[in-house]
Amino acid sequence: MTVDTEIIDDAYALDSGLIEQVLLAVEHQSQPELLTIFAELHEADIADLLEQLHSEDRRAVIQLWGDELDAGVLTELEAGVRDEIMAETPHQVLADAVRELETDDVVYLVEDLDEAQQEKLLDSLDTADRVAVEQSLQYDEYSAGRLMQREIVVAPQHWTVGDIIDFMRSTEDLPDVFYEVIITDAMMHPVGTVSLSTIMGAKRDVRLTDIMKEDFRTIPVDQSQEDVAYAFNQYNLVSAPVIDHNGRLVGVITIDDAMEVLEDEAEEDMRLLAGLGDEELSSRVWETAKLRFPWLAVNLLTAVIASMVIALFTDTIEAIVALAVLMPIVASMGGNAGTQSLTVAVRAIATRDLTPANAKRIVLRETLVGLANGIAFAVIIGLVGYVWFGNAMLGVVLGAAMIVNLLVAGTAGILIPIGLDKLGADPALASGTFVTTVTDVVGFFAFLGLAGALLL
Amino acid sequence: MTVDTEIIDDAYALDSGLIEQVLLAVEHQSQPELLTIFAELHEADIADLLEQLHSEDRRAVIQLWGDELDAGVLTELEAGVRDEIMAETPHQVLADAVRELETDDVVYLVEDLDEAQQEKLLDSLDTADRVAVEQSLQYDEYSAGRLMQREIVVAPQHWTVGDIIDFMRSTEDLPDVFYEVIITDAMMHPVGTVSLSTIMGAKRDVRLTDIMKEDFRTIPVDQSQEDVAYAFNQYNLVSAPVIDHNGRLVGVITIDDAMEVLEDEAEEDMRLLAGLGDEELSSRVWETAKLRFPWLAVNLLTAVIASMVIALFTDTIEAIVALAVLMPIVASMGGNAGTQSLTVAVRAIATRDLTPANAKRIVLRETLVGLANGIAFAVIIGLVGYVWFGNAMLGVVLGAAMIVNLLVAGTAGILIPIGLDKLGADPALASGTFVTTVTDVVGFFAFLGLAGALLL
Repeated sequence: MTVDTEIIDDAYALDSGLIEQVLLAVEHQSQPELLTIFAELHEADIADLLEQLHSEDRRAVIQLWGDELDAGVLTELEAGVRDEIMAETPHQVLADAVRELETDDVVYLVEDLDEAQQEKLLDSLDTADRVAVEQSLQYDEYSAGRLMQREIVVAPQHWTVGDIIDFMRSTEDLPDVFYEVIITDAMMHPVGTVSLSTIMGAKRDVRLTDIMKEDFRTIPVDQSQEDVAYAFNQYNLVSAPVIDHNGRLVGVITIDDAMEVLEDEAEEDMRLLAGLGDEELSSRVWETAKLRFPWLAVNLLTAVIASMVIALFTDTIEAIVALAVLMPIVASMGGNAGTQSLTVAVRAIATRDLTPANAKRIVLRETLVGLANGIAFAVIIGLVGYVWFGNAMLGVVLGAAMIVNLLVAGTAGILIPIGLDKLGADPALASGTFVTTVTDVVGFFAFLGLAGALLL
Repeated sequence: MTVDTEIIDDAYALDSGLIEQVLLAVEHQSQPELLTIFAELHEADIADLLEQLHSEDRRAVIQLWGDELDAGVLTELEAGVRDEIMAETPHQVLADAVRELETDDVVYLVEDLDEAQQEKLLDSLDTADRVAVEQSLQYDEYSAGRLMQREIVVAPQHWTVGDIIDFMRSTEDLPDVFYEVIITDAMMHPVGTVSLSTIMGAKRDVRLTDIMKEDFRTIPVDQSQEDVAYAFNQYNLVSAPVIDHNGRLVGVITIDDAMEVLEDEAEEDMRLLAGLGDEELSSRVWETAKLRFPWLAVNLLTAVIASMVIALFTDTIEAIVALAVLMPIVASMGGNAGTQSLTVAVRAIATRDLTPANAKRIVLRETLVGLANGIAFAVIIGLVGYVWFGNAMLGVVLGAAMIVNLLVAGTAGILIPIGLDKLGADPALASGTFVTTVTDVVGFFAFLGLAGALLL
């Protein structure tokens, strides 16, 4: 099989010559050559490049890279490739690399390792960092506690602009990234935040409490990452203090972390709607097939249920074989209309736009939209059926079944995700299969049932 | 119809009592009451609240709000609701409100208005802002030029940390949000950027050129918003200078704008995969039905094509009516497996992870995954068919058709979006319909064809 693989319109696509250069460096066994190539690339691009290599080539590149391994690249890799690389890298190289990271990145790297590996890697950190990482790991996965960084710039309430500037000038170990200073009382309860741009626009003798923002939002440390991402998006936050159960400051979350979660959540909804598991682009055939199998199995079950409905009408089909020809049309249109309603509902629930206040109205709208398009397509398909098979009553049956099925599709498409959400499940979870089961069953039943009643 | 509409697990859901309070304020015709409620809410929450009202109630709220209208709320609204509100608001109120916005928000608000309305609103701005907005409007919609803000903090190369701090302290009109200072040469070409946190950590007499980042990324003013969002996500950017064709600084894009685009792009892919147009949650029944009609019409066409394939085999079906019962199973499994491959491909193309370097491997993987699951489900469905109808050969036919269809599904699911991308179309565009057409046609043809050859 040959595939012409040129993909157009990619402002940030990796130069395809790069991979050849890297492989050439491996062939020459020249670490300097490799380092020269990597020096020009962002960590995220090196990660993408590594992901695109065959796994034997990747192993050779990592070996050649040796103790120059950049832990920042590890944080940008897909989990599968990262695990593979971390398993193959000598412990000392890994330990040296990880020591360069901020604590939130260390947490991200080690959280999926087994305890022994985790222990070993954490041992190589400074005590302060080690304690910070271990504390973060005590929070639930996918919680704000895991997402936050513990490096914070804090000022007491009596400080002036001059005090905080002097403090920053004299501190060696400022966080890599921060956008605001958090003002706390003596008990470490945050009382306000001041953005760096506000501080820089103020005179030295101004008190921070006079220019601080008092109506800032804090994030509870056990809040889900999904809610954190929503808050950043909804309220245009750039950075937010994280507090523990006693209201004390324990960390800070910045927008870049929230952006990643937001992207992950949207992707997860898409995956769930399509019936995909945790596979990655680098997953192998066998693993990918295994992960997709359960979803297909559920679909098989629902397809068999639809078939059982058809089996109820074998006499009718034997009498009029045209029914077998036309019946998939009604089912297919229902599936499509149901998926439209479903996708609207899943998105609206994710963005908190579907609420108790408007749910009734939206459900009604989806039902009426189903009815409206049901009528429109009833006319069209009725004519098609009539012209094709020369039987006016067959057209009527087709049209009536279409109206019923599109009406049901609209209603099921919105009620099923709302129902899943109320049960505490992800509204996207397998809801596509539920909806098409409903539209298949109703579609076949309405069409064949009406045909039996009106045509025989 | 009654719907129990409680939706759980929403940390940031609007208090449902709020809407009642707002309607009560309207009933009392008490603007102070309304303002008290709104004072507690973020602009984005006020926007959500307005979206959730019936349109008559919304009109009453806007009237009561009167000249206290907050233009920031307008920027957070769905386009449909925004247009409705802007059309009903007296010009002077709108003009006063808009004058409070940053230029990028003004651009966002006015870009969809017709020329006369746009003109009228722009007339109410200060000359400087007006010129800035008009220049932005000259760039293509969905380009970096539309996304950027023109308020920038720039420093010449000879400035020290002290110079920039003094400049900021003495400037009244600093941008609302900025994270870095851009250093330019005399021709306004950016030569480096310094984050505010770096400036604050440095002594007054340090030259900015000594602490600036020289390997920063610039965004060409005509780059697509999608590429801009990708760059922010991939390279963890927080802010990036925008340059014109001559390399001169014309604006800056910040991460909050990029985050919005990223969210929009993910949503667009979901919509296209589901066959949804530009509808909004507030769209009315008729409008929504009209927007969904074309996608359903395409689906009807493909469903008719699938029916035509079945029509080729009416003799076979007449001879063995069990075939009509079982044939949707093969088609449905193919559709599902195809959607899995398709979704993987659409995401991987959007995140630039599917590239010429690995496309061949991924296509091969998808084909083999289809084959593997095809074999697995061939065994299962073969047994089901045998047990159900007591005909071993029928089981063999079902199994063989399943293998063929899942193999084709995997291949079509990946090749169709790659093909659309190469043609310059959005890979998600109607690709779901294309894929299910292929799997329906192949599914029916393989199953009924094999049955005709082996069972008659």
